[in-house]
Amino acid sequence: MTRHATGLRSRVALAVLVLQPLLGSALAAQPASAIPAKYRDIANRIIAAAQVDSAGAWNRIAELTDRFGHRLSGSAALEQAIDWTVETMKRDGLDNVRKEPVMVPHWVRGEESLELVAPRRQKLPMLGLGGSIGTPAGGITADVMVVASFDELRARAAEAKGKIVLYDAEWRDYGYNGAFRRQGAIEAAKVGAVASLARAAGPYSMRTPHTGSMSYDPAVPKIPHAGVTAEDAMMMRRMIARGQPVRVTLTMGAQTLPDALSHNVMGELRGREKPDEIVVMGGHIDSWDVGQGAMDDAGGVVIAWEAIRLLKKLGLTPRRTIRAVGWTNEENGMRGGNAYRDTHQQEPHQLAIESDGGVFSPLGFGFTGKPEARAVIEAIGSLLTPIGAGKIGPSGGGADIGPIMATGVPGMGLNVDDSRYFWFHHTDADTPDKLNPAEVQRCVAAMAVMAYIAADLEQSLR
Amino acid sequence: MTRHATGLRSRVALAVLVLQPLLGSALAAQPASAIPAKYRDIANRIIAAAQVDSAGAWNRIAELTDRFGHRLSGSAALEQAIDWTVETMKRDGLDNVRKEPVMVPHWVRGEESLELVAPRRQKLPMLGLGGSIGTPAGGITADVMVVASFDELRARAAEAKGKIVLYDAEWRDYGYNGAFRRQGAIEAAKVGAVASLARAAGPYSMRTPHTGSMSYDPAVPKIPHAGVTAEDAMMMRRMIARGQPVRVTLTMGAQTLPDALSHNVMGELRGREKPDEIVVMGGHIDSWDVGQGAMDDAGGVVIAWEAIRLLKKLGLTPRRTIRAVGWTNEENGMRGGNAYRDTHQQEPHQLAIESDGGVFSPLGFGFTGKPEARAVIEAIGSLLTPIGAGKIGPSGGGADIGPIMATGVPGMGLNVDDSRYFWFHHTDADTPDKLNPAEVQRCVAAMAVMAYIAADLEQSLR
Repeated sequence: MTRHATGLRSRVALAVLVLQPLLGSALAAQPASAIPAKYRDIANRIIAAAQVDSAGAWNRIAELTDRFGHRLSGSAALEQAIDWTVETMKRDGLDNVRKEPVMVPHWVRGEESLELVAPRRQKLPMLGLGGSIGTPAGGITADVMVVASFDELRARAAEAKGKIVLYDAEWRDYGYNGAFRRQGAIEAAKVGAVASLARAAGPYSMRTPHTGSMSYDPAVPKIPHAGVTAEDAMMMRRMIARGQPVRVTLTMGAQTLPDALSHNVMGELRGREKPDEIVVMGGHIDSWDVGQGAMDDAGGVVIAWEAIRLLKKLGLTPRRTIRAVGWTNEENGMRGGNAYRDTHQQEPHQLAIESDGGVFSPLGFGFTGKPEARAVIEAIGSLLTPIGAGKIGPSGGGADIGPIMATGVPGMGLNVDDSRYFWFHHTDADTPDKLNPAEVQRCVAAMAVMAYIAADLEQSLR
Repeated sequence: MTRHATGLRSRVALAVLVLQPLLGSALAAQPASAIPAKYRDIANRIIAAAQVDSAGAWNRIAELTDRFGHRLSGSAALEQAIDWTVETMKRDGLDNVRKEPVMVPHWVRGEESLELVAPRRQKLPMLGLGGSIGTPAGGITADVMVVASFDELRARAAEAKGKIVLYDAEWRDYGYNGAFRRQGAIEAAKVGAVASLARAAGPYSMRTPHTGSMSYDPAVPKIPHAGVTAEDAMMMRRMIARGQPVRVTLTMGAQTLPDALSHNVMGELRGREKPDEIVVMGGHIDSWDVGQGAMDDAGGVVIAWEAIRLLKKLGLTPRRTIRAVGWTNEENGMRGGNAYRDTHQQEPHQLAIESDGGVFSPLGFGFTGKPEARAVIEAIGSLLTPIGAGKIGPSGGGADIGPIMATGVPGMGLNVDDSRYFWFHHTDADTPDKLNPAEVQRCVAAMAVMAYIAADLEQSLR
């Protein structure tokens, strides 16, 4: 193709002109300002090719999540999905396709329910929170104490003994509201509560409970902790405000079994000059045990995998190796990301990219690394402006690449229009129909352009 | 108040001027064109007063639906809600507060579930459809046949024998999509299916099943019929398209018990001159056995009731009686509306108004009646333009007022911004938090202005 041939010619011309690495600053090798001209034609070719295939990545997300459903660590479905990914990556012609063993926590939900027993009886939708202990077989029946914050809980600590504490905080953001899920059992147990409930951490609800991980403190008694819907949290608050004591029975069969064998799964596009140097990208293959784990995070795995497939189809082989990874156990242990660091930290990593915020319309990437590297990343980003994905934010990374980043590898997270992400996050509504095929293809393009150029640079980004 | 005094003066002045009824045309009594000037001050006073009380109607909807939850015909909760309404209407000082007996169908859902058993096992959210028979105790296990329409079912009739037919139609509108719920079991049974499933009739889903009424045909075998979510309908379609047969187990404990005693509930503002002539308005007090039945239709009952309370508070007593009714059994039998006609058709009804489309931001009313009456209603509507509720649509009514309208009473339905109504309709997400207090107060204002002026007119609207 003409555009590609032009691109290659520019690259050859530039390669002759650029300086060799200076002592102590590999980044000086190739000025960031030269990158757009050198790679524009290739980037445009990748972007165009990603959009010719109008639904390939979406179809793969749907196939993975329809075939195996949700994929909590320790489940057979997760390992079946990993094996299917190995087989399918091989069929796609990826290099060095493999799975690597990781022992993961194995929490199981069991049977569970929440029933309003006063002022009237009604089953309330709920989801136990990941890692919670269960209740005795007959459940725990107690009066509900509603608080809007940890401050309110502490101010009214004297009322909490023997109660089930309900955190009913209006939505602000995931950090703020997620804290009641993560820390709620600890704070409630400190003041003598027998169980705790957290209003769903999300901006919108159709009577939708959310699950997610929660913590215990070894110094504080463990109490069961579950998620309730925004609607029911508000209802219980209103009942109490009208002078009607609210009493519920919480029953949870949750338990933590011995650690189970899981795997990180990966495939590569081997580099042409420095195959031992790595640009790693991907998402997590595990999910919560609700919905289908389509946006959290089959999408992140699939767009990395599809980005490699696209580069291979275009015959584009960068200097370094690009590796697409489906990390395991992001949701309740981060064991996959830690195992990846342990197994792979001896390989020089040029860059790590994660997508774990949904594969909606891509806006750009957050980047964490040195200023010289940021200049290079911003130059690459400029080539994604045609699809609106060029903005490089002040920091970036991801839970799974956190451990390898901590060894000094620069990291990035794909940023998307996540305006509805937390509607579905950790709920039964995380299904592939929420994703738009054209948007997913643009995510593939963004990942492919970023990974290809980062892997092809003369200089190191570290 | 000055504004009110002005209104009274104008009214007196006009009453002197207007012609007496002409033979055969009561409507000629008072030109429609005179109405805005005569009633503008009163309308503005009602509108202002409705908005001073910023959340009174919303609080009452919340209290009714929190106290009693959902209220299916035959349930204790429905009768408790009716008794509470009687007591509370009396406390509010409404006139002639009473409940009137109505025998209603008594369908109970029982335990129910839908499980995907091939190509993998997963529980799927579902709701049996109202009136359906149950399955045998162990459920019905069969392969699923997906169709998008009745035409497709008939074209592929030979494949349906022994299958569970799944209607997977994308959302168009409630009339179109509701047909698969209402008629789906009949059409599926005609071609030999053993059960049927209908994709939720709604434009948006968070894995949200919808329930609602369904029909049998005495000439066709009865088969169980249930609602599934849009997400799962699409998933089963995709699985089959990939060559994976889909098999499910549908288990339903539904049954129809002997008819139960329920009641229409009502309270009045007695008219000052023609108290035996009636403007009736309201909604239905029963609901499906999901969510809290807040918008369908506690809201319709409460805004009529609050409209009367507001008029009483303002000391506004129209010529005729205004009656607020909570009809029973709208959802699965219409027995309340029929009983109302039987009991009350001897009373001259000036107008019947129903609100059963949610109490969101009011836009106006649909009206069905004679052209002369329409001119009057449009003139009244013009007084609601300050709150955006002045548009009078080409036809209107409601399920509960249908029977009395069929005796010759002009009818109206409150029209609202229903853009999200079918998100929640007949689901667990029909809860009061979906309603906006200020919008509900505007609905109260619209009902109060329309009912007051219609009841105060010199002429008959019939």
